[in-house]
Amino acid sequence: MIWCRFEAGGRVHFGILEGDSVTEVDGSPWGDHSRTHIQHKLGAVKLLAPLVPGTFYCAGVNYRTHVIKMAAKRDATPQFPEAADIGYRSPNAIIASGEAIVKPKDAGPEFQYEAELVAVIGKTGKHVPKEKALEHVFGWTIGNDVSERAWQRGDRTMWRGKDTDTFKPMGPWIVTGLDYRQMRTIVRLDGKEVENFATGDMIFSVEDFIERMTKYVTIHPGDVIWMGTDGVPENMRPGQTCEIEITGIGKLTNPIVLEK
Amino acid sequence: MIWCRFEAGGRVHFGILEGDSVTEVDGSPWGDHSRTHIQHKLGAVKLLAPLVPGTFYCAGVNYRTHVIKMAAKRDATPQFPEAADIGYRSPNAIIASGEAIVKPKDAGPEFQYEAELVAVIGKTGKHVPKEKALEHVFGWTIGNDVSERAWQRGDRTMWRGKDTDTFKPMGPWIVTGLDYRQMRTIVRLDGKEVENFATGDMIFSVEDFIERMTKYVTIHPGDVIWMGTDGVPENMRPGQTCEIEITGIGKLTNPIVLEK
Repeated sequence: MIWCRFEAGGRVHFGILEGDSVTEVDGSPWGDHSRTHIQHKLGAVKLLAPLVPGTFYCAGVNYRTHVIKMAAKRDATPQFPEAADIGYRSPNAIIASGEAIVKPKDAGPEFQYEAELVAVIGKTGKHVPKEKALEHVFGWTIGNDVSERAWQRGDRTMWRGKDTDTFKPMGPWIVTGLDYRQMRTIVRLDGKEVENFATGDMIFSVEDFIERMTKYVTIHPGDVIWMGTDGVPENMRPGQTCEIEITGIGKLTNPIVLEK
Repeated sequence: MIWCRFEAGGRVHFGILEGDSVTEVDGSPWGDHSRTHIQHKLGAVKLLAPLVPGTFYCAGVNYRTHVIKMAAKRDATPQFPEAADIGYRSPNAIIASGEAIVKPKDAGPEFQYEAELVAVIGKTGKHVPKEKALEHVFGWTIGNDVSERAWQRGDRTMWRGKDTDTFKPMGPWIVTGLDYRQMRTIVRLDGKEVENFATGDMIFSVEDFIERMTKYVTIHPGDVIWMGTDGVPENMRPGQTCEIEITGIGKLTNPIVLEK
Protein backbone atom coordinates (compact mmCIF):
# COMPACT_ATOMS: atom_id res chain seq x y z
CA MET A 1 0.00 0.00 0.00
CA ILE A 2 1.20 3.53 -0.79
CA TRP A 3 0.49 6.35 1.67
CA CYS A 4 1.02 9.99 0.79
CA ARG A 5 0.36 13.36 2.41
CA PHE A 6 -0.95 16.17 0.29
CA GLU A 7 -2.57 19.56 0.19
CA ALA A 8 -5.85 20.12 -1.63
CA GLY A 9 -8.34 22.94 -1.20
CA GLY A 10 -6.08 24.57 1.37
CA ARG A 11 -6.17 21.56 3.70
CA VAL A 12 -3.65 18.82 4.49
CA HIS A 13 -4.65 15.15 4.34
CA PHE A 14 -3.11 11.74 4.29
CA GLY A 15 -4.11 9.72 1.26
CA ILE A 16 -3.86 6.29 -0.31
CA LEU A 17 -2.32 6.21 -3.78
CA GLU A 18 -3.67 3.64 -6.26
CA GLY A 19 -2.50 4.07 -9.84
CA ASP A 20 -2.74 7.82 -10.38
CA SER A 21 -5.67 8.24 -8.00
CA VAL A 22 -5.33 9.54 -4.43
CA THR A 23 -8.10 8.69 -1.94
CA GLU A 24 -8.41 11.12 0.96
CA VAL A 25 -8.17 9.53 4.40
CA ASP A 26 -9.43 10.92 7.70
CA GLY A 27 -6.89 10.35 10.49
CA SER A 28 -3.30 9.15 10.23
CA PRO A 29 -1.88 5.97 8.69
CA TRP A 30 -0.57 4.74 12.10
CA GLY A 31 -3.64 5.83 14.09
CA ASP A 32 -7.40 5.50 13.75
CA HIS A 33 -8.34 6.35 10.19
CA SER A 34 -10.97 5.82 7.55
CA ARG A 35 -11.05 6.16 3.76
CA THR A 36 -13.32 8.91 2.51
CA HIS A 37 -15.11 8.90 -0.84
CA ILE A 38 -13.06 11.87 -2.04
CA GLN A 39 -10.57 11.10 -4.79
CA HIS A 40 -8.05 13.29 -6.60
CA LYS A 41 -5.80 12.77 -9.58
CA LEU A 42 -2.20 12.56 -8.35
CA GLY A 43 -1.25 15.36 -10.75
CA ALA A 44 -3.90 17.66 -9.25
CA VAL A 45 -2.64 17.67 -5.64
CA LYS A 46 0.45 19.18 -4.06
CA LEU A 47 2.43 16.31 -2.53
CA LEU A 48 3.96 17.11 0.88
CA ALA A 49 6.71 15.29 2.74
CA PRO A 50 4.89 12.09 3.78
CA LEU A 51 5.04 13.02 7.49
CA VAL A 52 6.45 15.49 9.99
CA PRO A 53 8.32 13.21 12.40
CA GLY A 54 7.96 13.43 16.18
CA THR A 55 11.58 12.42 16.58
CA PHE A 56 13.90 12.46 13.56
CA TYR A 57 16.52 9.74 14.04
CA CYS A 58 19.44 9.28 11.66
CA ALA A 59 22.02 6.49 11.66
CA GLY A 60 24.81 8.57 10.10
CA VAL A 61 27.75 6.34 9.14
CA ASN A 62 26.29 2.91 8.32
CA TYR A 63 27.78 1.42 5.13
CA ARG A 64 31.23 -0.17 4.95
CA THR A 65 32.21 1.06 1.47
CA HIS A 66 31.21 4.63 2.39
CA VAL A 67 33.54 4.54 5.40
CA ILE A 68 36.45 3.10 3.41
CA LYS A 69 36.15 5.45 0.43
CA MET A 70 35.47 8.61 2.47
CA ALA A 71 38.56 7.83 4.61
CA ALA A 72 40.69 7.22 1.48
CA LYS A 73 39.67 10.67 0.18
CA ARG A 74 41.11 12.21 3.34
CA ASP A 75 44.13 9.84 3.44
CA ALA A 76 42.82 8.56 6.77
CA THR A 77 42.31 5.11 8.27
CA PRO A 78 38.68 3.99 8.00
CA GLN A 79 36.91 4.05 11.37
CA PHE A 80 33.88 1.79 11.56
CA PRO A 81 31.21 2.54 14.17
CA GLU A 82 31.38 0.09 17.06
CA ALA A 83 27.72 0.16 17.97
CA ALA A 84 24.36 1.20 16.53
CA ASP A 85 24.54 4.66 18.15
CA ILE A 86 21.74 6.67 16.60
CA GLY A 87 21.91 10.40 15.81
CA TYR A 88 19.38 13.12 15.01
CA ARG A 89 18.31 15.51 12.29
CA SER A 90 15.90 18.44 12.50
CA PRO A 91 12.30 18.68 11.21
CA ASN A 92 12.74 22.32 10.07
CA ALA A 93 14.92 21.09 7.21
CA ILE A 94 12.35 18.71 5.67
CA ILE A 95 10.95 19.39 2.18
CA ALA A 96 8.88 17.27 -0.20
CA SER A 97 9.81 15.62 -3.47
CA GLY A 98 9.69 18.29 -6.17
CA GLU A 99 10.63 21.16 -3.86
CA ALA A 100 13.95 22.98 -4.24
CA ILE A 101 17.07 22.30 -2.18
CA VAL A 102 18.35 25.83 -1.51
CA LYS A 103 22.15 26.12 -1.41
CA PRO A 104 23.09 28.96 0.98
CA LYS A 105 25.14 31.77 -0.59
CA ASP A 106 28.06 31.09 1.76
CA ALA A 107 28.04 27.29 1.30
CA GLY A 108 31.15 25.79 -0.27
CA PRO A 109 31.54 23.50 -3.30
CA GLU A 110 31.30 20.29 -1.24
CA PHE A 111 27.51 20.47 -1.22
CA GLN A 112 26.44 16.83 -1.49
CA TYR A 113 23.51 14.40 -1.52
CA GLU A 114 23.32 11.29 0.65
CA ALA A 115 20.74 8.74 -0.49
CA GLU A 116 19.06 7.03 2.47
CA LEU A 117 16.36 4.50 3.19
CA VAL A 118 13.90 5.82 5.78
CA ALA A 119 12.03 3.54 8.19
CA VAL A 120 8.73 5.09 9.36
CA ILE A 121 7.71 3.88 12.82
CA GLY A 122 4.08 2.79 13.18
CA LYS A 123 3.93 1.24 16.64
CA THR A 124 5.19 2.33 20.05
CA GLY A 125 8.07 0.23 21.38
CA LYS A 126 10.53 -0.09 24.24
CA HIS A 127 12.89 -3.05 24.74
CA VAL A 128 12.05 -4.42 21.28
CA PRO A 129 14.07 -7.53 20.38
CA LYS A 130 15.63 -7.76 16.91
CA GLU A 131 13.20 -10.49 15.80
CA LYS A 132 10.22 -8.21 16.43
CA ALA A 133 11.78 -4.92 15.29
CA LEU A 134 10.18 -4.83 11.84
CA GLU A 135 6.70 -5.13 13.42
CA HIS A 136 7.28 -1.54 14.57
CA VAL A 137 8.06 -0.27 11.06
CA PHE A 138 4.94 1.00 9.31
CA GLY A 139 6.60 1.46 5.94
CA TRP A 140 9.48 2.92 3.97
CA THR A 141 10.33 6.16 2.25
CA ILE A 142 13.42 7.89 0.84
CA GLY A 143 15.59 10.62 2.35
CA ASN A 144 18.31 12.87 0.97
CA ASP A 145 20.68 13.77 3.83
CA VAL A 146 22.04 16.89 2.09
CA SER A 147 25.40 17.87 3.59
CA GLU A 148 27.75 20.84 3.41
CA ARG A 149 31.05 19.12 4.18
CA ALA A 150 33.11 22.14 5.29
CA TRP A 151 30.47 23.02 7.90
CA GLN A 152 30.07 19.36 8.85
CA ARG A 153 33.82 19.13 9.54
CA GLY A 154 34.38 22.60 10.98
CA ASP A 155 31.42 23.42 13.24
CA ARG A 156 31.11 22.12 16.80
CA THR A 157 27.82 20.41 15.84
CA MET A 158 26.28 19.39 12.52
CA TRP A 159 23.41 21.88 12.79
CA ARG A 160 24.02 23.90 9.61
CA GLY A 161 26.13 21.26 7.83
CA LYS A 162 23.13 18.91 7.90
CA ASP A 163 20.04 20.81 9.13
CA THR A 164 19.89 24.09 7.22
CA ASP A 165 16.37 24.71 5.84
CA THR A 166 15.62 22.46 2.79
CA PHE A 167 18.57 20.09 3.52
CA LYS A 168 16.29 17.13 4.28
CA PRO A 169 14.14 16.16 1.29
CA MET A 170 11.92 13.18 2.22
CA GLY A 171 9.39 11.32 0.09
CA PRO A 172 7.69 10.98 -2.28
CA TRP A 173 5.46 8.68 -0.19
CA ILE A 174 5.49 5.74 2.24
CA VAL A 175 5.26 2.19 0.91
CA THR A 176 4.27 -0.68 3.21
CA GLY A 177 4.99 -4.39 2.97
CA LEU A 178 8.46 -4.22 1.39
CA ASP A 179 11.64 -6.20 2.14
CA TYR A 180 14.43 -3.63 2.38
CA ARG A 181 17.09 -6.30 1.83
CA GLN A 182 15.86 -6.72 -1.76
CA MET A 183 16.09 -3.04 -2.72
CA ARG A 184 18.68 -1.04 -4.63
CA THR A 185 19.40 2.65 -4.11
CA ILE A 186 20.26 4.66 -7.22
CA VAL A 187 21.27 8.33 -7.39
CA ARG A 188 21.10 10.40 -10.59
CA LEU A 189 22.38 13.94 -11.08
CA ASP A 190 20.66 15.53 -14.08
CA GLY A 191 19.72 12.02 -15.15
CA LYS A 192 23.27 10.62 -15.02
CA GLU A 193 23.69 7.69 -12.61
CA VAL A 194 26.30 8.56 -9.97
CA GLU A 195 25.58 5.87 -7.37
CA ASN A 196 23.99 2.43 -7.26
CA PHE A 197 24.17 0.24 -4.19
CA ALA A 198 22.33 -2.54 -2.35
CA THR A 199 20.09 -0.75 0.15
CA GLY A 200 20.36 -3.56 2.67
CA ASP A 201 24.17 -3.63 2.74
CA MET A 202 24.29 -1.83 6.10
CA ILE A 203 26.81 -2.19 8.92
CA PHE A 204 23.95 -2.22 11.43
CA SER A 205 20.55 -3.31 10.13
CA VAL A 206 17.24 -1.59 10.81
CA GLU A 207 16.58 -4.38 13.32
CA ASP A 208 19.96 -3.80 15.04
CA PHE A 209 19.19 -0.10 15.45
CA ILE A 210 15.67 -0.62 16.76
CA GLU A 211 16.83 -3.23 19.27
CA ARG A 212 19.64 -1.03 20.60
CA MET A 213 17.71 2.25 20.52
CA THR A 214 14.76 0.86 22.42
CA LYS A 215 16.91 -0.31 25.29
CA TYR A 216 16.95 3.39 26.23
CA VAL A 217 14.35 5.28 24.20
CA THR A 218 10.70 4.68 23.38
CA ILE A 219 9.98 4.82 19.66
CA HIS A 220 6.61 6.31 18.72
CA PRO A 221 4.33 6.17 15.66
CA GLY A 222 5.42 8.95 13.34
CA ASP A 223 9.11 8.80 14.28
CA VAL A 224 11.53 8.19 11.40
CA ILE A 225 14.92 6.49 11.23
CA TRP A 226 17.18 7.45 8.32
CA MET A 227 19.55 4.57 7.64
CA GLY A 228 22.74 6.13 6.21
CA THR A 229 24.27 6.06 2.73
CA ASP A 230 26.85 4.15 0.72
CA GLY A 231 29.50 5.25 -1.77
CA VAL A 232 31.17 8.65 -2.11
CA PRO A 233 28.70 11.43 -2.89
CA GLU A 234 29.49 13.98 -5.59
CA ASN A 235 28.97 17.72 -5.37
CA MET A 236 25.61 19.21 -6.41
CA ARG A 237 25.51 22.56 -8.19
CA PRO A 238 22.59 25.01 -8.48
CA GLY A 239 20.71 24.29 -11.69
CA GLN A 240 21.12 20.52 -11.32
CA THR A 241 18.42 18.08 -10.25
CA CYS A 242 19.12 15.26 -7.79
CA GLU A 243 17.01 12.12 -8.10
CA ILE A 244 17.16 9.29 -5.59
CA GLU A 245 15.39 6.07 -6.51
CA ILE A 246 14.92 3.16 -4.17
CA THR A 247 13.43 0.21 -6.01
CA GLY A 248 9.93 -0.62 -4.76
CA ILE A 249 9.46 2.82 -3.21
CA GLY A 250 9.82 5.37 -6.02
CA LYS A 251 11.83 8.48 -6.75
CA LEU A 252 12.67 11.50 -4.60
CA THR A 253 13.47 14.33 -7.00
CA ASN A 254 14.68 17.81 -6.06
CA PRO A 255 16.17 20.67 -8.07
CA ILE A 256 19.07 22.60 -6.52
CA VAL A 257 18.82 26.40 -6.50
CA LEU A 258 21.13 29.08 -5.10
CA GLU A 259 19.86 31.16 -2.18
CA LYS A 260 18.66 34.58 -3.36
CA MET B 1 1.64 35.72 32.52
CA ILE B 2 2.07 32.05 33.38
CA TRP B 3 1.11 29.38 30.84
CA CYS B 4 0.86 25.72 31.73
CA ARG B 5 -0.23 22.53 30.01
CA PHE B 6 -2.27 20.00 31.95
CA GLU B 7 -4.50 16.98 31.83
CA ALA B 8 -8.00 17.06 33.29
CA GLY B 9 -10.91 14.76 32.56
CA GLY B 10 -8.73 12.69 30.24
CA ARG B 11 -8.02 15.66 27.94
CA VAL B 12 -4.95 17.86 27.46
CA HIS B 13 -5.26 21.67 27.53
CA PHE B 14 -3.12 24.73 27.79
CA GLY B 15 -4.03 26.93 30.71
CA ILE B 16 -3.30 30.26 32.35
CA LEU B 17 -2.19 30.08 35.96
CA GLU B 18 -3.28 32.86 38.31
CA GLY B 19 -2.60 32.27 41.99
CA ASP B 20 -3.58 28.63 42.45
CA SER B 21 -6.27 28.74 39.77
CA VAL B 22 -5.80 27.38 36.24
CA THR B 23 -8.09 28.71 33.48
CA GLU B 24 -8.54 26.36 30.53
CA VAL B 25 -7.63 27.84 27.17
CA ASP B 26 -8.77 26.68 23.73
CA GLY B 27 -5.92 26.76 21.25
CA SER B 28 -2.21 27.26 21.90
CA PRO B 29 -0.38 30.13 23.62
CA TRP B 30 1.49 31.06 20.37
CA GLY B 31 -1.49 30.55 18.06
CA ASP B 32 -5.14 31.57 18.00
CA HIS B 33 -6.59 30.94 21.43
CA SER B 34 -9.34 31.98 23.78
CA ARG B 35 -9.90 31.69 27.54
CA THR B 36 -12.75 29.42 28.50
CA HIS B 37 -14.86 29.79 31.64
CA ILE B 38 -13.55 26.51 33.02
CA GLN B 39 -11.25 26.80 36.02
CA HIS B 40 -9.40 24.22 38.06
CA LYS B 41 -7.41 24.33 41.26
CA LEU B 42 -3.72 23.86 40.42
CA GLY B 43 -3.58 20.96 42.89
CA ALA B 44 -6.44 19.19 41.10
CA VAL B 45 -4.84 18.91 37.65
CA LYS B 46 -1.94 16.84 36.37
CA LEU B 47 0.70 19.27 35.11
CA LEU B 48 2.39 18.16 31.89
CA ALA B 49 5.63 19.44 30.36
CA PRO B 50 4.55 22.90 29.15
CA LEU B 51 4.93 21.92 25.49
CA VAL B 52 6.10 19.20 23.11
CA PRO B 53 8.60 21.08 20.94
CA GLY B 54 8.63 20.88 17.16
CA THR B 55 12.40 21.19 17.16
CA PHE B 56 14.32 20.77 20.38
CA TYR B 57 17.45 22.93 20.21
CA CYS B 58 20.14 22.87 22.89
CA ALA B 59 23.19 25.12 23.20
CA GLY B 60 25.34 22.58 25.03
CA VAL B 61 28.53 24.23 26.32
CA ASN B 62 27.66 27.88 27.01
CA TYR B 63 29.06 29.11 30.37
CA ARG B 64 32.71 30.05 30.90
CA THR B 65 33.06 28.69 34.47
CA HIS B 66 31.53 25.36 33.43
CA VAL B 67 34.14 24.98 30.67
CA ILE B 68 37.04 25.88 32.96
CA LYS B 69 35.98 23.66 35.87
CA MET B 70 34.97 20.66 33.74
CA ALA B 71 38.36 20.84 31.95
CA ALA B 72 40.21 21.07 35.29
CA LYS B 73 38.43 17.88 36.44
CA ARG B 74 39.89 16.06 33.43
CA ASP B 75 43.29 17.84 33.68
CA ALA B 76 42.60 19.30 30.24
CA THR B 77 42.92 22.78 28.74
CA PRO B 78 39.54 24.55 28.63
CA GLN B 79 38.15 24.78 25.10
CA PHE B 80 35.64 27.55 24.60
CA PRO B 81 33.15 27.27 21.74
CA GLU B 82 34.10 29.62 18.88
CA ALA B 83 30.58 30.21 17.59
CA ALA B 84 26.96 29.83 18.66
CA ASP B 85 26.66 26.38 17.03
CA ILE B 86 23.39 24.95 18.26
CA GLY B 87 22.78 21.26 19.03
CA TYR B 88 19.71 19.08 19.53
CA ARG B 89 17.94 16.95 22.10
CA SER B 90 15.06 14.52 21.61
CA PRO B 91 11.35 14.97 22.50
CA ASN B 92 10.98 11.33 23.64
CA ALA B 93 13.04 12.17 26.73
CA ILE B 94 10.80 14.99 28.02
CA ILE B 95 8.95 14.61 31.32
CA ALA B 96 7.07 17.12 33.50
CA SER B 97 7.94 18.58 36.86
CA GLY B 98 7.05 16.01 39.51
CA GLU B 99 7.67 13.00 37.29
CA ALA B 100 10.52 10.60 37.99
CA ILE B 101 13.91 10.66 36.27
CA VAL B 102 14.58 6.95 35.72
CA LYS B 103 18.24 5.95 36.00
CA PRO B 104 18.88 2.95 33.72
CA LYS B 105 20.17 -0.17 35.45
CA ASP B 106 23.40 -0.07 33.43
CA ALA B 107 24.06 3.68 33.92
CA GLY B 108 27.21 4.57 35.85
CA PRO B 109 27.69 6.77 38.91
CA GLU B 110 28.28 9.95 36.87
CA PHE B 111 24.55 10.50 36.45
CA GLN B 112 24.15 14.28 36.65
CA TYR B 113 21.74 17.21 36.40
CA GLU B 114 22.39 20.28 34.25
CA ALA B 115 20.21 23.28 35.12
CA GLU B 116 19.21 25.24 32.03
CA LEU B 117 17.13 28.22 31.05
CA VAL B 118 14.73 27.35 28.20
CA ALA B 119 13.59 29.92 25.62
CA VAL B 120 10.21 29.00 24.09
CA ILE B 121 9.81 30.35 20.57
CA GLY B 122 6.49 32.09 19.83
CA LYS B 123 7.01 33.61 16.38
CA THR B 124 8.40 32.28 13.11
CA GLY B 125 11.74 33.79 12.13
CA LYS B 126 14.52 33.61 9.54
CA HIS B 127 17.44 36.06 9.32
CA VAL B 128 16.50 37.59 12.68
CA PRO B 129 18.96 40.30 13.81
CA LYS B 130 20.16 40.26 17.42
CA GLU B 131 18.18 43.42 18.30
CA LYS B 132 14.91 41.71 17.34
CA ALA B 133 15.70 38.22 18.62
CA LEU B 134 13.75 38.45 21.87
CA GLU B 135 10.58 39.38 19.94
CA HIS B 136 10.60 35.74 18.81
CA VAL B 137 10.74 34.38 22.38
CA PHE B 138 7.27 33.73 23.78
CA GLY B 139 8.45 33.00 27.31
CA TRP B 140 10.77 31.05 29.55
CA THR B 141 10.81 27.73 31.33
CA ILE B 142 13.37 25.46 33.03
CA GLY B 143 15.14 22.36 31.72
CA ASN B 144 17.22 19.66 33.37
CA ASP B 145 19.66 18.30 30.77
CA VAL B 146 20.23 15.00 32.62
CA SER B 147 23.48 13.40 31.47
CA GLU B 148 25.20 10.03 31.87
CA ARG B 149 28.83 11.10 31.48
CA ALA B 150 30.39 7.74 30.56
CA TRP B 151 27.92 7.34 27.68
CA GLN B 152 28.32 11.00 26.72
CA ARG B 153 32.10 10.52 26.44
CA GLY B 154 32.16 6.99 25.02
CA ASP B 155 29.34 6.70 22.47
CA ARG B 156 29.66 8.00 18.90
CA THR B 157 26.68 10.31 19.53
CA MET B 158 25.00 11.63 22.69
CA TRP B 159 21.76 9.73 22.07
CA ARG B 160 21.63 7.66 25.27
CA GLY B 161 24.01 9.88 27.30
CA LYS B 162 21.52 12.75 26.94
CA ASP B 163 18.28 11.45 25.37
CA THR B 164 17.34 8.28 27.22
CA ASP B 165 13.62 8.33 28.21
CA THR B 166 12.99 10.72 31.18
CA PHE B 167 16.40 12.49 30.79
CA LYS B 168 14.82 15.83 29.82
CA PRO B 169 12.57 17.21 32.59
CA MET B 170 11.06 20.53 31.46
CA GLY B 171 8.71 22.87 33.30
CA PRO B 172 6.87 23.53 35.49
CA TRP B 173 5.32 26.20 33.19
CA ILE B 174 6.17 29.04 30.82
CA VAL B 175 6.47 32.59 32.17
CA THR B 176 6.29 35.57 29.80
CA GLY B 177 7.66 39.09 30.15
CA LEU B 178 10.85 38.27 32.09
CA ASP B 179 14.40 39.62 31.69
CA TYR B 180 16.67 36.58 31.73
CA ARG B 181 19.72 38.72 32.57
CA GLN B 182 18.21 39.40 36.01
CA MET B 183 17.65 35.75 36.96
CA ARG B 184 19.59 33.31 39.12
CA THR B 185 19.66 29.54 38.65
CA ILE B 186 19.79 27.44 41.81
CA VAL B 187 20.07 23.66 42.06
CA ARG B 188 19.19 21.68 45.19
CA LEU B 189 19.72 17.98 45.78
CA ASP B 190 17.43 16.76 48.56
CA GLY B 191 17.05 20.39 49.58
CA LYS B 192 20.81 21.10 49.81
CA GLU B 193 22.01 23.88 47.50
CA VAL B 194 24.67 22.50 45.14
CA GLU B 195 24.76 25.25 42.50
CA ASN B 196 23.84 28.92 42.27
CA PHE B 197 24.76 31.02 39.25
CA ALA B 198 23.69 34.09 37.26
CA THR B 199 21.42 32.71 34.53
CA GLY B 200 22.49 35.40 32.06
CA ASP B 201 26.23 34.75 32.41
CA MET B 202 26.35 32.94 29.06
CA ILE B 203 29.19 32.78 26.53
CA PHE B 204 26.66 33.32 23.72
CA SER B 205 23.41 35.05 24.66
CA VAL B 206 19.92 33.97 23.61
CA GLU B 207 20.08 36.79 21.07
CA ASP B 208 23.45 35.58 19.71
CA PHE B 209 22.05 32.09 19.19
CA ILE B 210 18.84 33.23 17.52
CA GLU B 211 20.73 35.56 15.17
CA ARG B 212 23.20 32.87 14.13
CA MET B 213 20.69 29.99 13.98
CA THR B 214 18.27 31.90 11.79
CA LYS B 215 20.90 32.61 9.16
CA TYR B 216 20.34 28.97 8.21
CA VAL B 217 17.24 27.61 9.93
CA THR B 218 13.70 28.90 10.37
CA ILE B 219 12.57 28.95 14.00
CA HIS B 220 8.90 28.12 14.55
CA PRO B 221 6.38 28.70 17.35
CA GLY B 222 6.68 25.79 19.75
CA ASP B 223 10.41 25.24 19.20
CA VAL B 224 12.58 25.42 22.33
CA ILE B 225 16.19 26.45 22.87
CA TRP B 226 17.91 25.11 26.00
CA MET B 227 20.70 27.51 26.94
CA GLY B 228 23.37 25.41 28.70
CA THR B 229 24.50 25.21 32.32
CA ASP B 230 27.18 26.62 34.62
CA GLY B 231 29.30 25.08 37.37
CA VAL B 232 30.25 21.43 37.85
CA PRO B 233 27.24 19.17 38.33
CA GLU B 234 27.23 16.55 41.08
CA ASN B 235 26.06 12.96 40.77
CA MET B 236 22.39 12.14 41.43
CA ARG B 237 21.45 8.89 43.16
CA PRO B 238 18.13 7.02 43.11
CA GLY B 239 16.09 8.12 46.11
CA GLN B 240 17.24 11.73 45.82
CA THR B 241 15.17 14.64 44.49
CA CYS B 242 16.63 17.24 42.14
CA GLU B 243 15.13 20.73 42.25
CA ILE B 244 16.08 23.47 39.81
CA GLU B 245 14.85 26.96 40.57
CA ILE B 246 15.19 29.89 38.22
CA THR B 247 14.09 33.08 39.92
CA GLY B 248 10.97 34.53 38.31
CA ILE B 249 10.02 31.22 36.69
CA GLY B 250 9.60 28.70 39.50
CA LYS B 251 10.89 25.25 40.41
CA LEU B 252 11.38 22.11 38.32
CA THR B 253 11.38 19.21 40.78
CA ASN B 254 12.01 15.55 39.93
CA PRO B 255 12.72 12.50 42.06
CA ILE B 256 15.36 10.04 40.80
CA VAL B 257 14.40 6.35 40.72
CA LEU B 258 16.29 3.27 39.56
CA GLU B 259 14.97 1.42 36.50
CA LYS B 260 13.04 -1.69 37.51
